[in-house]
Amino acid sequence: MLPGAIQLKKKFMVIDNKEKIIILNGQEFHCAMDVTMHYIGGKWKTVVLWYMRKDKKRFSELKKLIPNITEKMLSLQLKDLERDGIVTRKVYPEVPPRVEYFLTDFGKSLIPMLEEIARWGRHLTEKKGKIVDSQTKKKTKNS
Amino acid sequence: MLPGAIQLKKKFMVIDNKEKIIILNGQEFHCAMDVTMHYIGGKWKTVVLWYMRKDKKRFSELKKLIPNITEKMLSLQLKDLERDGIVTRKVYPEVPPRVEYFLTDFGKSLIPMLEEIARWGRHLTEKKGKIVDSQTKKKTKNS
Repeated sequence: MLPGAIQLKKKFMVIDNKEKIIILNGQEFHCAMDVTMHYIGGKWKTVVLWYMRKDKKRFSELKKLIPNITEKMLSLQLKDLERDGIVTRKVYPEVPPRVEYFLTDFGKSLIPMLEEIARWGRHLTEKKGKIVDSQTKKKTKNS
Repeated sequence: MLPGAIQLKKKFMVIDNKEKIIILNGQEFHCAMDVTMHYIGGKWKTVVLWYMRKDKKRFSELKKLIPNITEKMLSLQLKDLERDGIVTRKVYPEVPPRVEYFLTDFGKSLIPMLEEIARWGRHLTEKKGKIVDSQTKKKTKNS
């Protein structure tokens, strides 16, 4: 436990009465949901983390796995995730330098939640979606 | 299953090779994570849904429960959630009209995932955060 942290009683953990707030790493949050979304909110973070859940990834590998993300946006997401202690990177002194990103132990604590998020999307896709070859997508859009 | 949907084989559900894409409600997605985040991504949706998980809520109740959200932003989030079939509303012909928002059956399918997201934030708060009276927050920030 960090210095200054107090042991919290279970009954305080959902703060629906708004008379209490959470202070975490110097920031204020109004509920547990708010805390989690600080770490994984935004359009891309969950997707980036998803592809790192099993193994380290290089920047170029992530870019290839997430075709719709721009390099700038991917770089920004990785910087945020590093700042928050979720992702770390190892730089190999090669020419050109090789950089690998991987989840910290703290980052790995997100995996069960990420699996639950992916599971919901998979279930919906199975029920209502279809999977097509990416080459045929233009045809699909116009049909 | 919707017309045109196909039965998907399990092996296709995580689309890491990028040769397949998901088509769902006329939109393209690159993985299951991407699908879920379309529905719950953004700063506020999970928080709004969290407060509706057990019971219907009026706009003013949600506003009170989420002090940091603006009325415009709350209205926007509710419109998105309605458009996506997650939330519906009932208007009572009173003066002034009473409007109640509640989860659809589809929206209720999100609850286990929302609980997992909140659980992670609760766990982190218990480990590293502290809960203080909201009246004392200025003091806390400066200490």
